[in-house]
Amino acid sequence: MGNEITIPSILPGFMELLPADQMLFNKMLDTIRNTYEKFGFIPLDTPLIEKSEILLAKSGGETEKQIYRFTKGDNDISLRFDLTVPLARYVAQHYNDLTFPFRRYHIGKVYRGERPQKGRFREFYQCDIDIIGNESLSVINEAEILSVIYSTFKALGFDDFTMRINNRKVLNGFFEGLGISDKAGVLRAVDKLDKIGEQQVAKELSELGLDEAAIDGILKFLGTKGSSKHVIESLKAIQTANPMFLQGVEELEKVCGYIGYFGIPGKNFELDLTIARGLDYYTGTIYETVLDKYPGIGSVCSGGRYDSLAGNYTNKKLPGVGISIGLTRLFYQLREAGILGAAKKSTPTRLLIIPMDNTMNDALDISTKVRGNGIPTEVYFNEGKIARKFTYADKLGIPYVIVVGEDEIKSGLFKLKDMATGEQETLKLDDIINKIGNMED
Amino acid sequence: MGNEITIPSILPGFMELLPADQMLFNKMLDTIRNTYEKFGFIPLDTPLIEKSEILLAKSGGETEKQIYRFTKGDNDISLRFDLTVPLARYVAQHYNDLTFPFRRYHIGKVYRGERPQKGRFREFYQCDIDIIGNESLSVINEAEILSVIYSTFKALGFDDFTMRINNRKVLNGFFEGLGISDKAGVLRAVDKLDKIGEQQVAKELSELGLDEAAIDGILKFLGTKGSSKHVIESLKAIQTANPMFLQGVEELEKVCGYIGYFGIPGKNFELDLTIARGLDYYTGTIYETVLDKYPGIGSVCSGGRYDSLAGNYTNKKLPGVGISIGLTRLFYQLREAGILGAAKKSTPTRLLIIPMDNTMNDALDISTKVRGNGIPTEVYFNEGKIARKFTYADKLGIPYVIVVGEDEIKSGLFKLKDMATGEQETLKLDDIINKIGNMED
Repeated sequence: MGNEITIPSILPGFMELLPADQMLFNKMLDTIRNTYEKFGFIPLDTPLIEKSEILLAKSGGETEKQIYRFTKGDNDISLRFDLTVPLARYVAQHYNDLTFPFRRYHIGKVYRGERPQKGRFREFYQCDIDIIGNESLSVINEAEILSVIYSTFKALGFDDFTMRINNRKVLNGFFEGLGISDKAGVLRAVDKLDKIGEQQVAKELSELGLDEAAIDGILKFLGTKGSSKHVIESLKAIQTANPMFLQGVEELEKVCGYIGYFGIPGKNFELDLTIARGLDYYTGTIYETVLDKYPGIGSVCSGGRYDSLAGNYTNKKLPGVGISIGLTRLFYQLREAGILGAAKKSTPTRLLIIPMDNTMNDALDISTKVRGNGIPTEVYFNEGKIARKFTYADKLGIPYVIVVGEDEIKSGLFKLKDMATGEQETLKLDDIINKIGNMED
Repeated sequence: MGNEITIPSILPGFMELLPADQMLFNKMLDTIRNTYEKFGFIPLDTPLIEKSEILLAKSGGETEKQIYRFTKGDNDISLRFDLTVPLARYVAQHYNDLTFPFRRYHIGKVYRGERPQKGRFREFYQCDIDIIGNESLSVINEAEILSVIYSTFKALGFDDFTMRINNRKVLNGFFEGLGISDKAGVLRAVDKLDKIGEQQVAKELSELGLDEAAIDGILKFLGTKGSSKHVIESLKAIQTANPMFLQGVEELEKVCGYIGYFGIPGKNFELDLTIARGLDYYTGTIYETVLDKYPGIGSVCSGGRYDSLAGNYTNKKLPGVGISIGLTRLFYQLREAGILGAAKKSTPTRLLIIPMDNTMNDALDISTKVRGNGIPTEVYFNEGKIARKFTYADKLGIPYVIVVGEDEIKSGLFKLKDMATGEQETLKLDDIINKIGNMED
């Protein structure tokens, strides 16, 4: 062509997968989607681009710095940085057309102009569910969220994971009871306990002006471990009349009580008073989820209860509870940790049909029939040596191949080659369809 | 809250759906996806944001004007305006890791800053498939594309649609044979035949400097109608030694010959010499698809064969063929035309379980069991009058409801209420699961 060549590349901080990994990624995404739908969450899709005044209605330092914001014509527009703000806008905007409690899921890409670093992405998928009440929302929804998390990670193939919960009212009420005014500052310090340890947290609390007694009280409080029953009993034993604290303990007790009803095994659940979550809009149960064998990955599914979803866009009181899975980061981490195993399939195709010289007509007929049974099927069209055609199947991880020659057409019997084992089985077409149609992906 | 309220709204030219429409939209999208996968197309996902130098490597007037382009830090970046340029970049970049022929599908949003008008969107879904060869690609792939289009629109529930094809070599070869130098200009004029009529096209051709004989020849040529067999015979009768024309006729004949093998009924296919397609990179078969009863919608699935996919990013010769469905616009048009019918379901939920006072435990148990059978199930948690709970099911279009009271628990028999008919049937839980599990969505 004599064209000037532009070296093909993408921007740093963006993930792009080769086919085999993409197949794995999509399978995870589909699993999450199916699980969310089984709990009756409604799919939503909102524009990736919104008015900056909407997305930044509640301005926050980090958000403003990281957001992709630009002008197009007269419009000051931005790319969404999460799915929660668009949900708040959506619910406020379409309030009269929605039925409450409004249970929605949203799986989509969000954008944050973070400094690129290992495992951090500027474009990533979030998989969110939220249940939004009109005026009120029963605490049992906070328990059900755990059932969704549990079902999702089980469906993704995990057994060893722990959902940890805490309650913001317990934390804030306890701090209030100690006479602490800067509760948000204390929360932020407490949130780092896992990362920086007790001593460092004590130092930060001291810098916030807390005296030794208060710091000791907080650290002792955070040190309460054991079964949920034990932790709740310890909380109840705390001498305080702080109403927020008392309500928080009651909520925790309710949520823990419902958990058994949802069939969640004890080993997958923990009440952990050290969980604080960074975001300041949580007001009740807060969630984190860790993979027991890979604590370094951090929380793979987090969220919480909030009393006001859409206060920036409506005067309606819309309490809710929700969680989010950051799938792009999770996928990256699982792959890095070698948990995903080798990706074997690079195509949805389950059967490759190789026509011999004059059998294209028949090969196409067969492909239409097999495909009509819901089985992803391909006919190899390129001419060339037969070995090369098998190599094509091998490279893509297509599990089965048949060669269609004149003998096969006459006899109605085909040699089905299992590409993994190399074994061949002579079968009628209907038997091939049954066999391949029933295989697991 | 006393906050200042920002009126919730989205930007003009963006589509956002309410739950019932979103369910319909997703169903169409899933249908397209499933059909593409049945033909063995591999899912791809690429960043929405790319380097501007990549997306604009082949600069074109309209593209430059419409693209969302901005700077973030040091980067000159743009939102993709189609899925073809990212595919070209992807194939060039990952050439060594891909297996050819590379069959990929991509369903994703693209962005064009068009002036907003009815039925035109600035953010819209494209559903693309392409088959990319390494150095060469058999013409049978151009026939298979018709099979994919046919299967897709059948799966979407359409019977009356016509796939129209033409061949660029036939057009360009014919114009060349007439001694026309500005073939692209003539193509553009011819492309408008449907819209502006013969007289206007003749005028435009005259303005391009064509003499009356040439114009007459072109219009007569374009007027060739009838069965593919007849059109091909008419083409063969044309006295010309132009090699491009002759090759084009041969390709058309091959594609039409293969079509029968793919089981495509004659009524869904037409050879139409007036189809030109705007894009100048097509070099072989070109496709348009119209819904017979709604010609005003225009082509709902278009594409073509090209000889060089990625010439801007690699010296490798990568011929291919592909098509695209603009789903956002299609959905909008179908809805406007009233073809979609009333959207009835606003949730994936098939069964709503309403617990009575003390049966929450049992209701949750039942929900877990039903859900375990793959049936989207919800428990109604909010307290209130029972009528209101049925209204919730009614509003969302949940097809079945059971009330779980103490009697039901004792007897193991539940009254399954069909919300559409109002009828109740007394059944065991297993029978309910069988009944609801086998229903069509």
